[in-house]
Parts: sequence; structure tokens; C-alpha cells
Amino acid sequence: MSDPAGYSYLSFLTDYGREDGFVAICHGQILERAPAVRVIDITHDVPPGDVRRGATVLAETAPELPPGVHVTVVDPGVGTERRSIAVRAGGHVLVGPDNGLLVWAAEALGGIEACHEIANPGLWRHPVSATFHGRDIYAPVGAWLAAGLPLSETGPELPSSELVRLPEPRHEVSGGLARGEVRAIDRFGNCQLSLLRDDLAGADTPPGSLRVHAPGGRWTVPFGHTFASVGAGEPVLLVDSAGYVALSENGGDAARSFGLSVGDAIDIEAATGGGDPSEGAAKADA
Amino acid sequence: MSDPAGYSYLSFLTDYGREDGFVAICHGQILERAPAVRVIDITHDVPPGDVRRGATVLAETAPELPPGVHVTVVDPGVGTERRSIAVRAGGHVLVGPDNGLLVWAAEALGGIEACHEIANPGLWRHPVSATFHGRDIYAPVGAWLAAGLPLSETGPELPSSELVRLPEPRHEVSGGLARGEVRAIDRFGNCQLSLLRDDLAGADTPPGSLRVHAPGGRWTVPFGHTFASVGAGEPVLLVDSAGYVALSENGGDAARSFGLSVGDAIDIEAATGGGDPSEGAAKADA
Amino acid sequence: MSDPAGYSYLSFLTDYGREDGFVAICHGQILERAPAVRVIDITHDVPPGDVRRGATVLAETAPELPPGVHVTVVDPGVGTERRSIAVRAGGHVLVGPDNGLLVWAAEALGGIEACHEIANPGLWRHPVSATFHGRDIYAPVGAWLAAGLPLSETGPELPSSELVRLPEPRHEVSGGLARGEVRAIDRFGNCQLSLLRDDLAGADTPPGSLRVHAPGGRWTVPFGHTFASVGAGEPVLLVDSAGYVALSENGGDAARSFGLSVGDAIDIEAATGGGDPSEGAAKADA
Repeated sequence: MSDPAGYSYLSFLTDYGREDGFVAICHGQILERAPAVRVIDITHDVPPGDVRRGATVLAETAPELPPGVHVTVVDPGVGTERRSIAVRAGGHVLVGPDNGLLVWAAEALGGIEACHEIANPGLWRHPVSATFHGRDIYAPVGAWLAAGLPLSETGPELPSSELVRLPEPRHEVSGGLARGEVRAIDRFGNCQLSLLRDDLAGADTPPGSLRVHAPGGRWTVPFGHTFASVGAGEPVLLVDSAGYVALSENGGDAARSFGLSVGDAIDIEAATGGGDPSEGAAKADA
Repeated sequence: MSDPAGYSYLSFLTDYGREDGFVAICHGQILERAPAVRVIDITHDVPPGDVRRGATVLAETAPELPPGVHVTVVDPGVGTERRSIAVRAGGHVLVGPDNGLLVWAAEALGGIEACHEIANPGLWRHPVSATFHGRDIYAPVGAWLAAGLPLSETGPELPSSELVRLPEPRHEVSGGLARGEVRAIDRFGNCQLSLLRDDLAGADTPPGSLRVHAPGGRWTVPFGHTFASVGAGEPVLLVDSAGYVALSENGGDAARSFGLSVGDAIDIEAATGGGDPSEGAAKADA
Repeated sequence: MSDPAGYSYLSFLTDYGREDGFVAICHGQILERAPAVRVIDITHDVPPGDVRRGATVLAETAPELPPGVHVTVVDPGVGTERRSIAVRAGGHVLVGPDNGLLVWAAEALGGIEACHEIANPGLWRHPVSATFHGRDIYAPVGAWLAAGLPLSETGPELPSSELVRLPEPRHEVSGGLARGEVRAIDRFGNCQLSLLRDDLAGADTPPGSLRVHAPGGRWTVPFGHTFASVGAGEPVLLVDSAGYVALSENGGDAARSFGLSVGDAIDIEAATGGGDPSEGAAKADA
């Protein structure tokens, strides 16, 4: 597939926070090289150095954006020998460190079509610092790509099999039991699981009920269409807007009610007809 | 009044926070449909589900923006039968759930000129999720309106009398006593009251003094023009930039000093000439 | 030097936070007067009234942005007789209160070329409030300047020697000892010192070691090129992306580990060959 003549949109995801000028400095680098590009800030509130969180947000967001360049910087290895990469996937381009940050997004966009190491210093801001490659490398390279630079100009091609990958989230389905984990928790306390609707194939179509096994206990939770499929303050399993199974609470904070954190193991199975006297109530008390 | 040929500006207010990709995803939906529109983010830090807070910020902000479309999503009823609406007011258009979120802003903009139910699925993103109508309905519809779609295309007309309204803030003026409440508290601790300058008609022109009755006590507070009308750390009543009476503290945080929260009842009356030995000092100690 | 025919970029730095509509209201004022300008938000999370913090972030950010107008509002003296100023420096223009907020940035941009008092009410939004000059004065004036208004139209010229200046950070170098202070702490806990590379002229080129005297103790810390010049969790001194010496921790939070706050005095000297049994370990325990 050949390169298009540039991109109108450039998204930007980092762990830089918004209290310093780092994000604005990168915007400046971008606009100096691609004055016509529209910058969409995804988030800059990834917890410092949390590559996994950045990868999760990026994979969920990039496919919902118009075709463009996605500049991504969660880079605890800045200044080391870790590589930097530019990847084309599904008509988008992703730029960032080779630490797993952008691979899930590339797959969500349709899979890696081409991958190049970022190794052409002619594209960078100089002098290149040892601690701020967002400013010196990723923003400039992303901007040049948005302005029409062919991907191959960024550096030598890399086989995608050589890219660093993060460990995949827990995901096993067998015999009516789906084993996953908490993939993400949003601001509302919704716990997105690493399970898709089809992983619950044995489950009743909503409004059935499912058994949830979590670190803090076991619960029977209704499987509904939306928050309001249950009463106020009641828990509900649903398929969220990204297609994942989520454990939510109508008007409440499921993560707090169930004491869940990202990465916690969660198993889901079809609820048995009869109640199990040893199981917890439908909602955690703690 | 006929529809204009679209709008150059689209503002966006939600309770989505900035840690996830939700806001960027909506920006993407907007830009795909209205690539030329300028998006102004009002805030995305409305506390989750706090419709009243969203309505207060929107009503204060929208009239200060250039004519445009205001897309507003604080929507605890997402996925229920609550309606969605598009309203024209004062040459602006407001889009959001029919839960009271946008009515105060419409009135601040000059009053509702036309109201339509959002009921034309041809304008939406599909499939429509049960939990993310910002992405699937409000951002797309807002974008089409900015791009020139007539308001009537969004769905059938609704009488404005049928719109859901929030309870009005406490506001009674009689016999030199103005009864209000804390309408909003900003980052600086300024307590904006649900009282206007004219509600204090019996009060001396600044720099007189007023009596403030709050849940935590009674105080005599100077009525000044600005923060520095009083000494550092001293409380002051003033007319704020939105035209409301506010209880502030010069260089300090009035909300903390007076122990006030949004919704607290506040009465204000002209101060008597002589001091009342039973009243508190000019500034709360706690 | 004559004025250019306006600016394509306008940056914006305040202490307004993002929970209210204040920032958006100023964006509206800007766009009504300079519809084509590109607005770059530097930060709005300066702690309320912290002029020094605002000045520090601005001085580090403005020189990295394309030539433009920088509108800056950290203004605890709003409504008092403090002046407002517009300054040209290095082909950029800075607008804000005359309280020291923008002088360091002007110097970082190359020095003040011209300074005018903002005193032409014909440029302002009316009525001018006593508490929100960002909306009423700074955003409008900044926008007019971006749109091509000559600087001299803002008001009478002021000698730059009359501008309010903040106290300079501690900075003394003599006899191999560099006395500085913590200038800024970023989100990652990196402590940027008020010392430049050349202030450590007596120090070994990395990877030597230096002695750090801080309020909480004395440490010998390696002088490295980047975070990963030391092991995970180990402290390191380096030259940061802005050219300042910084005390960092590889993968950790140096500010927390060393118990440092902005303004804390820090002395650095070349490490002696032998260990001093009375000094602390290479890393603080607390």
C-alpha cells in the first residue's frame, strides 16, 4: 500500500500531564512542521510510565478517529537503546517508542501494514535531549508524516515480528467459563473486562444473570443492555461502547463497590438456576 | 427565525474527564462530519452525573462564546427512555439529553426559539451503543448542525414547556433580605450566590457592609468592588464577572474559610449600624 | 524593529483550572477577534495565584513555540492598580499583568525589545469586570495583536526597567561549589535546579559523581546523561531538556525520595574521592 499525501489529523497521547508546558512544546514542534494539521489530544493523563494504560486507551481511541497520525509517548526507557518506530495500520500511522505502546492500537486499526525504525536524524529537532524525545523525535517525525513524508523516509523497515509486545491480558474461554481480567476502569468506575460478548456465548441474552468471580468474592449479576437495566445502585454486566464486557453499577462506581483494580482476574460463567448459599449478595458491601 | 448556513464554532461540555479517550473520540466524530468547525472545549471535569453543575457552567459560558453549536453530555440516564433534544436560542444551538442540562443556558442566551427532539437515526453513528451517546448521537448531531443541517431535520418539534427542568436555585427577595444559595464555587474558592446585584438594592453601594447568614454562622462582610477592596485574607462580597453576588476572600479561599458547599443556603441583608455582640467575626475562624 | 502583520499562533497560560468555563470564555474572546489564529494552551493548572510557577513554566515553554502572542494570566492583583503590559521579545509578543509573570519568558526569548502599558480601553471587552481581566483585557488585546494590531496601539511605551520583577532564583557559583535551588518539579518528580551545565564546570563529565547538599541531608549522586545512566530506582543528576541541571531518579520520583519542594536550597559540588562516613546513602530512605 502506498502512502497517502499526508494526513489532516494528528492525535497525541502522552503521560506528560497538563501542569507543565511539555504538551504545548510538542504542539509547537508539530505546528512548525505541519501548520495545517488538526491536533486532537487523546489524553496526557496516562499515569507516569504506565505503558499498558497508554496502550489500552490508544487501542480504544485510535480506531474511532479519522485517518491520521497518532503520536504516542509513554516512554520510561527514554534515553536508552530502546528503538523508536513508525507503523502504518488501517490507513493510519502510529509513531512512538518500541515498548508495546502502539501495537494493540495498530491491531485494532486492522493490523500492521508496514513498520519502520525511526532512525533518520534529519527529521528530528536538534540538539536531541536525553529525556524529552516527545519534543525532539516523536512530535517532529509525526508532523512530517502528517505533512506528506513517506513512511519509508523515517528509517529502515523492521519486521513487525521484532516489535516489543506487552503481555496480553488474561483471556481464556472454555466450558462456559470465561476467564478475563479488568482491562480498564474509567472515571465512572465502570470496569471494562478483557472479554467480548461472544466470550459469554453460553450466557443468556440479556436480561439473564451471570456469576462473577473476582478477588473479593463471588456475585450473581444481571446481564443487561445498559446501566438502567437494573435499579439505582445495583450492579450490572453489559457490553460497553467499545464492545467489551463491563461490570458497572447504575449511578454508582462498580470499581469501588467491588474493590477492583486494573489487572484483577475476573471469571464469568452462566449463573446456575438455584442460589448458592455460600455466595455473596448481588452487590459487594465493602 | 430561519436556520443560518451552519456555525463556525462548536463547544463541548461533558463529565467524561480527560483520562480516557472519550473526549477525543467525540472530537473525531465531530471532525468527520464538520471538518471546518472549530471545537472549543468548555470543560470535561463536571463531576460524574452532576447535571446541575454542568448546567451552571454551561449557562455561564455559552453566552460568552461566539454563536455556535454547544454539545453537552452529562447524562446519567443514558440508555433509558429519556429524550434527546436540540434547541435554538439567541442564535446558538444546544444539543444534549433532556434532563435540564441545557435549559438554563438556553435562557441565558435569550430564551428558547425552537426545540426539536433528536429522533432521526439517519444522523447518528451506528451501531448506537447503550452507554456512549456522546459519541453515537450528540457529537454527530451537533456536527451536522454546525455543518448546516436545519434544526428541524433532527426530529419532531417539541413544545419547550415539555422540557425537563432542574429545580431553580433558592432566590427570594423581600424587605431588605435576599435569600439565596451557593450556586457555584470556583477553583479559587469564590462562592457565587444565586443573587444578582439588584437583589441587594437595599444595600449600600460599595464600600458598605452586609450581613451574611450562612449555615455556619453570621458575619458582617464588606461589599466591595474587587478582591483587593479588603485587606489580604479578608472576606468581601462583590459582583462577579458573570453578574452574580459572590462571597470571596482576598488572596484566600472563601469556600474553605466559611465552610461553604454548593447548594448551601445564604441570606444577605443590610448590616445594622451597631455591632451585634452575638455575631461572628468578619471572618470565620474554622 | 517593526511589527509583523500579525501572528498565526496564540498561546495561553493561566491559573484558571479546567473545571470552570473561564478558559473557554477567553478562547471565545480570542476567536471573535482573531478567527484565524491557532490557540495553543500551555497550561491552566498553575496553582491559584502562583506567579512564580507561571513565570517558570512560561519561560521554559515560550521559546519552544512558533512566533506568536502569549497571553498569560496569573493575576492575584486583578482589580488593583497593578499595570497590564504587552512586551515584544525575540519576535514574539507577551501580554499579561505587570507582576513578573512574563519577564523571564521575555528574557528567554532574547530580551525585551519593546514594552507598552495596556491602557487603550478601545481594545477591551466592556463592561470590564473587576475580577476577570483574562476575559475583558488580556484575551482581547492578545487577539488584536495576533490579528495584526501594532504593539504601540495598546498604550504608552514603558521603559523595561520599570517592570515588576520576581526575585531571581538562588544562583551562586564559586570555588567548585554551585548554590542553587529547586526551580521546578515536574509530574515525574524530576527536580529542575536553578543551575546550568556550565555551573558545574568543576564536575566530571558524566559519568562522574557529585555531592548534593539539600535540606534533608547530603548525598553523592552520579552525574549521568539520562535516567537510565543509573539502575532502576537510583538517583541521578543530569542536564534536562531545557538545559538545567536536574536531580532525577530512574523510574522513580526524586522529589519524593529526597523530600524536596520548589524553592528548596540545593548546593552541588564535585564529589571527593573517598567516602564521607557521615553522609547519607546514595538515595534517601524517607
